[in-house]
Amino acid sequence: MRHLISCSIALACATAYADEGMWTFNDFPTELVAQKFHFTVTPEWLAHVRASSVRLARGCSGSIVSPNGLVMTNHHCAHRCIEELSSGKQDLVKAGFVAKTAREERKCPNVEVNQLLEISDVTQRINAATEKLSGGEFFEAIKGEMSQIEKECATSESIRCDVVTLFGGGRYNLYRYRRFQDLRLVFAPEFSTAFFGGDPDNFMFPRYDLDVAFLRIYENGEPARTDDYFRWSAAGAAEGELAFISGNPGKTSRLSTIAELKYQRDIALPEELLKQARWRGLLAEFQVLGSEQERISTARLFSVENGFKSMEGRREALVDEEFFAQKVAEERDLRGKIDADPQKKALYGTAWDELAAATERLKRIRKPLAYLERGQAFSARLFDVARQLVRAADELPKPNRQRLREFAESNLPVMRQALFSPAPIHRQLEVTTLAHSLSEMREQLGPDHPAVKAILGRNSPRELAEALVKGTKLDDVEQRRLLYRGGKSAVAASGDPMIRFALRIDPYAREFRKHYEDEVESVIQKNSERIARARFAVYGSKTYPDATFSPRLSFGRVRGWGEDGSPVPPITTFGGAFERDTGQPPFALPRSWLAARSRLDLSTPLNFCTDHEVVGGNSGSPMINRNLEIVGLIFDGNIHSLGSTYGFPPNARAVAVHSRAIIEGLEKIYGATRIAQELHPVSRTSLK
Amino acid sequence: MRHLISCSIALACATAYADEGMWTFNDFPTELVAQKFHFTVTPEWLAHVRASSVRLARGCSGSIVSPNGLVMTNHHCAHRCIEELSSGKQDLVKAGFVAKTAREERKCPNVEVNQLLEISDVTQRINAATEKLSGGEFFEAIKGEMSQIEKECATSESIRCDVVTLFGGGRYNLYRYRRFQDLRLVFAPEFSTAFFGGDPDNFMFPRYDLDVAFLRIYENGEPARTDDYFRWSAAGAAEGELAFISGNPGKTSRLSTIAELKYQRDIALPEELLKQARWRGLLAEFQVLGSEQERISTARLFSVENGFKSMEGRREALVDEEFFAQKVAEERDLRGKIDADPQKKALYGTAWDELAAATERLKRIRKPLAYLERGQAFSARLFDVARQLVRAADELPKPNRQRLREFAESNLPVMRQALFSPAPIHRQLEVTTLAHSLSEMREQLGPDHPAVKAILGRNSPRELAEALVKGTKLDDVEQRRLLYRGGKSAVAASGDPMIRFALRIDPYAREFRKHYEDEVESVIQKNSERIARARFAVYGSKTYPDATFSPRLSFGRVRGWGEDGSPVPPITTFGGAFERDTGQPPFALPRSWLAARSRLDLSTPLNFCTDHEVVGGNSGSPMINRNLEIVGLIFDGNIHSLGSTYGFPPNARAVAVHSRAIIEGLEKIYGATRIAQELHPVSRTSLK
Repeated sequence: MRHLISCSIALACATAYADEGMWTFNDFPTELVAQKFHFTVTPEWLAHVRASSVRLARGCSGSIVSPNGLVMTNHHCAHRCIEELSSGKQDLVKAGFVAKTAREERKCPNVEVNQLLEISDVTQRINAATEKLSGGEFFEAIKGEMSQIEKECATSESIRCDVVTLFGGGRYNLYRYRRFQDLRLVFAPEFSTAFFGGDPDNFMFPRYDLDVAFLRIYENGEPARTDDYFRWSAAGAAEGELAFISGNPGKTSRLSTIAELKYQRDIALPEELLKQARWRGLLAEFQVLGSEQERISTARLFSVENGFKSMEGRREALVDEEFFAQKVAEERDLRGKIDADPQKKALYGTAWDELAAATERLKRIRKPLAYLERGQAFSARLFDVARQLVRAADELPKPNRQRLREFAESNLPVMRQALFSPAPIHRQLEVTTLAHSLSEMREQLGPDHPAVKAILGRNSPRELAEALVKGTKLDDVEQRRLLYRGGKSAVAASGDPMIRFALRIDPYAREFRKHYEDEVESVIQKNSERIARARFAVYGSKTYPDATFSPRLSFGRVRGWGEDGSPVPPITTFGGAFERDTGQPPFALPRSWLAARSRLDLSTPLNFCTDHEVVGGNSGSPMINRNLEIVGLIFDGNIHSLGSTYGFPPNARAVAVHSRAIIEGLEKIYGATRIAQELHPVSRTSLK
Repeated sequence: MRHLISCSIALACATAYADEGMWTFNDFPTELVAQKFHFTVTPEWLAHVRASSVRLARGCSGSIVSPNGLVMTNHHCAHRCIEELSSGKQDLVKAGFVAKTAREERKCPNVEVNQLLEISDVTQRINAATEKLSGGEFFEAIKGEMSQIEKECATSESIRCDVVTLFGGGRYNLYRYRRFQDLRLVFAPEFSTAFFGGDPDNFMFPRYDLDVAFLRIYENGEPARTDDYFRWSAAGAAEGELAFISGNPGKTSRLSTIAELKYQRDIALPEELLKQARWRGLLAEFQVLGSEQERISTARLFSVENGFKSMEGRREALVDEEFFAQKVAEERDLRGKIDADPQKKALYGTAWDELAAATERLKRIRKPLAYLERGQAFSARLFDVARQLVRAADELPKPNRQRLREFAESNLPVMRQALFSPAPIHRQLEVTTLAHSLSEMREQLGPDHPAVKAILGRNSPRELAEALVKGTKLDDVEQRRLLYRGGKSAVAASGDPMIRFALRIDPYAREFRKHYEDEVESVIQKNSERIARARFAVYGSKTYPDATFSPRLSFGRVRGWGEDGSPVPPITTFGGAFERDTGQPPFALPRSWLAARSRLDLSTPLNFCTDHEVVGGNSGSPMINRNLEIVGLIFDGNIHSLGSTYGFPPNARAVAVHSRAIIEGLEKIYGATRIAQELHPVSRTSLK
């Protein structure tokens, strides 16, 4: 069985010896786990994991860890909320936050959490809607049908429904979630311990990070009561023991065609890396302007640095000639088998070439698409708000099926939460980022591009950015509500310069979106579907789909690896953190740690690594033992894990905070006994 | 003959239809020119061109254009000098500079100009010195022999001698130059017209840049008198007419092996681009700190942006699959022919694999080599000074042959000019660049690298940078002279923190340099030699060598090209510049132009493009007609020319300032009649 599964991706057998797979809850390989670990995953066990795990809708994972709706995730997943609750006078990112009582718990401006209720298959319905269509018609049909299915499923605002495209379209599943939007911050340590080691240590191991935060789900103004939660393990993770990770890996591209991989390797990744490298330089210099500038740009810099390192890992994976040759051989193998069978050849034979042709078309429009439609030219929160208002006014009057996907009924709650978020907006940073992105647009599209001329006129990018950011009133949430409610006539009548600006841009942006949807996205989607079916026809479907930021379960063990011939031990301790402390960021432990040192058991495990599959989106995933108890909290992968987008590297490791470290920290460093007791009501004294 | 030459690079014939070739003065294809253009290049003609052309030793080209030693080059080649002669109160970069009298001409702190006197062949001597050696021994022998040859040749400080490695080592020629170090600024227009269009228009055409500057060679405090100079053409360049470009193309890699090209494509170029992208972001943000910060960082930002765009063009050339496949086929063809002949196989057969193995070794040491030895970790002028002093103290007592190459006798004048340059050093910029580069070093080598630990200790990069820059006295040229004269004991006794810092780093830096020289550079050099000989043995030697920043001559015509099916006309006018003016940088013409508008003949040619070969280093090259008259001044290439490093793209074009534009500007915009008359004593009135 093991053999069968890992070889269903032809030729990948040679390297796939760790516990590969990001399995869906409705297709979990129970037999494989039973055979390898002598542990039987029952439907009830799976249901409990599913219901106790959550997705943070803006890009992370988490778990429910108490009957009172306490949610555990990473500090870096709550970073935005913590920053948005801060001010120049009270910097919670720097100082940390402990709600001593329930009343001190503070509402995050813009967090949504989803709890998976049910998965159903809608493949046939989607296929029926798109049969025999192609190009723009195919795109409109699949978009419309997805929006329709989701609308039918989402019977109230507290239900979220997503049609998830699996295996590139080989399967379409409908994921039905409970939606929570009232999340309150309960606990966060200082950034300096949550991200100890900073960018230099990011994606590295050994590590010493207390990258944890607790939020709480509220319903009707009260903490949510639930029976679906994970209990706490007294011992925590131990080397070699079976454990499970439940989370939402964001995106992998293991089934991508060679044409797509080449596009990524030679164009998309290098270009995106270069963009992000400039952002890094710019933000690093913005940070030294002063402590307030540092504060308001830290989350963004972290996100840029993190994305940068992870993309560089992906690029390196693709320029590895041996790896790429294997990918080429896999595709050749599949195409050879398809071509050898006349019936299969008739059905699937042309799919790769059609997809490659779409990739060529993408090359030609990628820059205007990125800058104008995807907003890379307008990097400012105030612009995002303006565009959403402009487009909502256009889209909401249309029938659900015909709207842009992000304005489909089922997507409105998450859109509105962001649009009406009271999070502060920092004008100096807005000017800086908008000026830079406008300037980059001019560089990349050229000063003679009609859209560039229409956008800049005779202004310099900085002049224009200053005028827009100074002139707009969209930082006032009430203004946004008025324009949203007022619809098309209110938007058309608005004199707000950012609204006028967004209106001016929209025809250009929509033009490239339409090109992209009709000539690129539709063709890629349709032919990915065909290739997925071809793959099923040749190798069967007993494998896991590429990651799609939907709930998945993986299994494995706490395990080190060998680096340059030396073993890397899998568990670090509090003592190691003190040894690594230099007193200077990013290697400076906070005062709270220094003050608590004598009280701490320095041999307590702090971080550890495991051989599970994780990719971006898994941040905040609980790691649980077979008894459904929390033993750790995933927050990173090692450097080898960065290649996971295109395959599963043998030395890839997930990196986690140890469950005992969380209790040790809460009790002995932060005096957060209320939270420690909620997590661990019985055995905490035994740990002291 | 034509066919023979362009096909001497096997398989390249298909694309090489423009006038390919950067020919040396001692191997110019006179027959080819005669056949194609019915013009006979005589030895006297060649000698006049050679003697009237100059090299700006720090990276540009120029020409002598009057009997009084007037040198024409690009503004961007003189930018550093112009900036170094500026201050916060008097910004000559922004305002431009016209020396109304000879006494107003201002000495550049750090410019050296070379006039080629003679070329001789030293291949046999080098080969005899290195015969049968390999690795470190080979390296020491070739280095020592080159230093020895140069020392014997350079009979005084006013003679410069360089052994130039041609065809990767197939030939070694000795270039003997007259050296001038007293160069004075005579004329520069405003940066806004010299670099009109800025980075967006860089490497683009049509263009509208008056990218010209004049310097003057002084000898013994007086303008140098010479008969070797180009006269001025009355009509200037005209479409379709034969013309020549005499200059110093910097570096091409058309003969590189596939192993080297892959290293460039997958590792070196992407990594360097990412570094430069961060510098761009950082410097862009530094620029907005204030007008003085903008002033002191403009030259650097220009250099970063220019290098960035040019590297991105190189990367794009290499990821073009068709182009790369052609390179692979060329290598396969050559290797096939070598392997088919037992004698040749014995001599050259293993060269490619040995070179590839060295490239693999380079991969492993590239980062410490770049950061520690090549100074990427220590980006500060004050550090450069400290390192030069530290190393001079170590190296100068050694025999010439054994010194690091940059401290060989023949290289001392240029080293000393830089070391003792009185150009101002800007401490705020020094802190910024040093902090950034130290931080990048930590990121790239990792915080646990022994050198990183030794360098940073418990400091943050910024803290350390601030302490070093604040504490050092090396901005005082007298301090440098004292330490230089004092030698090893003075340096060892110095308490200057930057000197202590450079001393602390040097063992690590030298270690990686030694690794590199013994295990990488020597192997690449030796096997490049073998491959060059293999190529001669198979295809003959009737071709041009890769560019090596030594004097070359190319021929061709003023000629547009077709872009997306539309012709690009080859000549622009002053009128076009006014049309493109938006009033905002980088598209803002200076006041002087606006004021002169009514006096100008707007139909006067401003810029033009030609089908000659140019690459970086050719900036400032004169373009001359068959009568040895200046018709233009090269300052750029079009976007297609960026691929020239690895081949000669058919649509590559050189971009030049028209000779008439220079006169029109000098006379009607800048009132620089003294200079216009010196250039053009007879016919200037006829141009009005």
